[in-house]
Amino acid sequence: MQHALQVARQGLGHVEPNPAVGAVIVDENLNWIADGFHQKFGGPHAEIDAIAAAGERTRGAELFVTLEPCSHHGKTPPCADAVIAAGFRRVVIGCQDPAPHVAGNGIARIQEAGIDVAVGVCEDEAIDLIAPFRKLMLQKQPWVHAKWAMTLDGRIATRTGHSKWISNEQSRAEVHRLRGHMDAIITGAGTVRADNPTLTARPAGPRKAMRVVVDTDGGSIVSDGNLLKTINEAPLLLCAAEASATSDHVKMLAGLGVEVFTTSKTDRSAALAQLLAELGRRNITNVLVEAGSGLLGSFFDGRHVDEVHVFVAPKIVGGTGALSPIGGQGMAQVSEDASINSMLVQQFGNDLLIEGRLRSSAS
Amino acid sequence: MQHALQVARQGLGHVEPNPAVGAVIVDENLNWIADGFHQKFGGPHAEIDAIAAAGERTRGAELFVTLEPCSHHGKTPPCADAVIAAGFRRVVIGCQDPAPHVAGNGIARIQEAGIDVAVGVCEDEAIDLIAPFRKLMLQKQPWVHAKWAMTLDGRIATRTGHSKWISNEQSRAEVHRLRGHMDAIITGAGTVRADNPTLTARPAGPRKAMRVVVDTDGGSIVSDGNLLKTINEAPLLLCAAEASATSDHVKMLAGLGVEVFTTSKTDRSAALAQLLAELGRRNITNVLVEAGSGLLGSFFDGRHVDEVHVFVAPKIVGGTGALSPIGGQGMAQVSEDASINSMLVQQFGNDLLIEGRLRSSAS
Ligand SMILES: NC(=O)c1ccc[n+]([C@@H]2O[C@H](COP(=O)([O-])OP(=O)(O)OC[C@H]3O[C@@H](n4cnc5c(N)ncnc54)[C@H](OP(=O)(O)O)[C@@H]3O)[C@@H](O)[C@H]2O)c1
Ligand SMILES: NC(=O)c1ccc[n+]([C@@H]2O[C@H](COP(=O)([O-])OP(=O)(O)OC[C@H]3O[C@@H](n4cnc5c(N)ncnc54)[C@H](OP(=O)(O)O)[C@@H]3O)[C@@H](O)[C@H]2O)c1
Repeated sequence: MQHALQVARQGLGHVEPNPAVGAVIVDENLNWIADGFHQKFGGPHAEIDAIAAAGERTRGAELFVTLEPCSHHGKTPPCADAVIAAGFRRVVIGCQDPAPHVAGNGIARIQEAGIDVAVGVCEDEAIDLIAPFRKLMLQKQPWVHAKWAMTLDGRIATRTGHSKWISNEQSRAEVHRLRGHMDAIITGAGTVRADNPTLTARPAGPRKAMRVVVDTDGGSIVSDGNLLKTINEAPLLLCAAEASATSDHVKMLAGLGVEVFTTSKTDRSAALAQLLAELGRRNITNVLVEAGSGLLGSFFDGRHVDEVHVFVAPKIVGGTGALSPIGGQGMAQVSEDASINSMLVQQFGNDLLIEGRLRSSAS
Repeated sequence: MQHALQVARQGLGHVEPNPAVGAVIVDENLNWIADGFHQKFGGPHAEIDAIAAAGERTRGAELFVTLEPCSHHGKTPPCADAVIAAGFRRVVIGCQDPAPHVAGNGIARIQEAGIDVAVGVCEDEAIDLIAPFRKLMLQKQPWVHAKWAMTLDGRIATRTGHSKWISNEQSRAEVHRLRGHMDAIITGAGTVRADNPTLTARPAGPRKAMRVVVDTDGGSIVSDGNLLKTINEAPLLLCAAEASATSDHVKMLAGLGVEVFTTSKTDRSAALAQLLAELGRRNITNVLVEAGSGLLGSFFDGRHVDEVHVFVAPKIVGGTGALSPIGGQGMAQVSEDASINSMLVQQFGNDLLIEGRLRSSAS
């Protein structure tokens, strides 16, 4: 199953809004026969990929698959039927499919065909692997990644707003890699004003993310800014307050190809919930928030964040007036609620990248 | 030499205000014969320890020693003479002794005796090893360690001042270990008021640190506070403004056994320079600043900090009003000056400890 999980990960960034899935076929002595994974959206599912590679050797063999085989006709015929037809002796499944139209039906179908089925092997890892898909299925919202680059004393900009560059080149390359796996990149008016970002992945990754700017009146998006200059490279969505929709500036932006989405909520984190629901409706699976203190504060206050990617640079900035990564209201107590399950540390040159998932994340 | 450096480290915390030194004796084929290190203040130096262990086998052997052998009569007779008498064929030295009364004299003496001498092998590490001693010799100030425990979003307390506990038990045990290697622990009035700390090492380490509270008027030190309750366990120094020296409260504190040191400077980081000069005069080698944003801000503004020990807990606090580790004026630009040479990462349970030395550190 560990191998199946490993194989599955190759699909990340290519399969969304489907889940990444891996499959391994072994003989009765657990000797490897073949493996497969869901390689791209619309392409064959992992089980089918593995079955095709194994050919006749599936008879009497065992199938390890990270996710319950599907039971419905979608872009491809039901995998459960193909698994039955392949004549496996035993099927071992990582976790059940959270999609309401599958949710156990695939397992039942295989069992009814008289095949021995085990569910829940390496279950936590199998669930972790499809966490963004699971959130989209169950909550109809994308998985929210928050990224920031801070100094070792926890600052994202000095008291004068200077922030170029806190992180090093290797870290910035990793940010571009991350962007290339996202469906949307969200930033705030303050960052657009301060940094004039482009928010595209360079080089391009497997996915091309829509760029989203959260800005009450759209004023941060200006004609000679990098976002508008690259309007043909990736879609641009302005998330503004309802009242701004009819302003001349916003109409001008719409005329230049900016899509405008307005939120009726005035509470900042409720407005973000509206935005996330809209993105979920569009089957957007992963979004990356690359913003300043203000917007990240609203995202955390609303408990919208599922995963963090924190670059820590070997620098000290100090200063009462320097900017911290997360503003907003914040927590009153140091609480278990907002803790990170476990931190994974990597090194990019002299920077560290610390990644983790929020314990409160509803995945 | 790597082995000699390794051996030397065992003396850290025991030898101060002397430097930690290690020595290894090998035969002409570089086979190990004996090693030694400076084990405690007043005890034999590393070379002597190794020579004693080697006995007659020093004749024609090679001596690797991390620091230049001394040339003067101190607590012990000059090591250079003992090295000459031992009949080494060759002496390999990590770095020259920064102490003005040695500074090359030991090397010269051994060379004059006709022994082949090489200096500067693993020199950077040899210098790093004695950095606190070096600073005390050259600048007559202690080596300043700053420690803080922060959340993954860079906060040392929530907007309400809540900070118990950001770090976990294993991390806090490591702080006690650190304290046990220090000559002084410095904190500020804000931390004494908020946390009522004791600032002793529990369990005790090789050194017993003096506790220093930086407080303009001494008002944070109260009769039923933990600092006064433990006045017999470790010395307590109040660093106050000159004007406060005659106040009733400070006189009361002095009567209870608190030593009072007053600074004439009103500029906060200049006042700290006065304190550090006083500590240097007392041959204090290592101090640990365990304070809040205010005092750490002044220490960094004055560029007094040489080394940082940052615990990062897998928690998110957020909030515009939450406390960051380093206040004060801070840097205007993200600058190379205040960068950390390299970060060493260790894990304490789910916390990380990131340690490093300031590049600007004048060691
Ligand atoms: N080191 C890093 O990783 C990093 C990354 C990004 C930015 N930065 C730095 O962060 C600074 C900018 O920070 P910032 O806090 O001003 O910018 P921000 O978080 O990007 O944007 C905040 C602004 O967005 C607007 N907004 C609209 N709806 C909002 C909502 N629901 N919640 C929150 N904000 C909403 C508000 O402006 P309106 O009221 O005008 O709409 C608000 O002031 C810059 O110095 C930049 O360099 C650093
Ligand atoms: N997580 C951690 O690692 C950690 C560690 C320590 C503290 N904390 C938290 O930090 C908070 C306290 O922070 P803080 O900034 O108030 O406390 P602080 O840094 O311990 O003390 C600052 C106070 O010291 C006095 N002071 C006197 N001379 C000074 C000088 N030269 N430079 C700076 N200050 C000088 C000032 O008060 P006067 O003007 O009254 O003299 C100043 O307000 C508490 O919430 C505490 O829990 C967290």
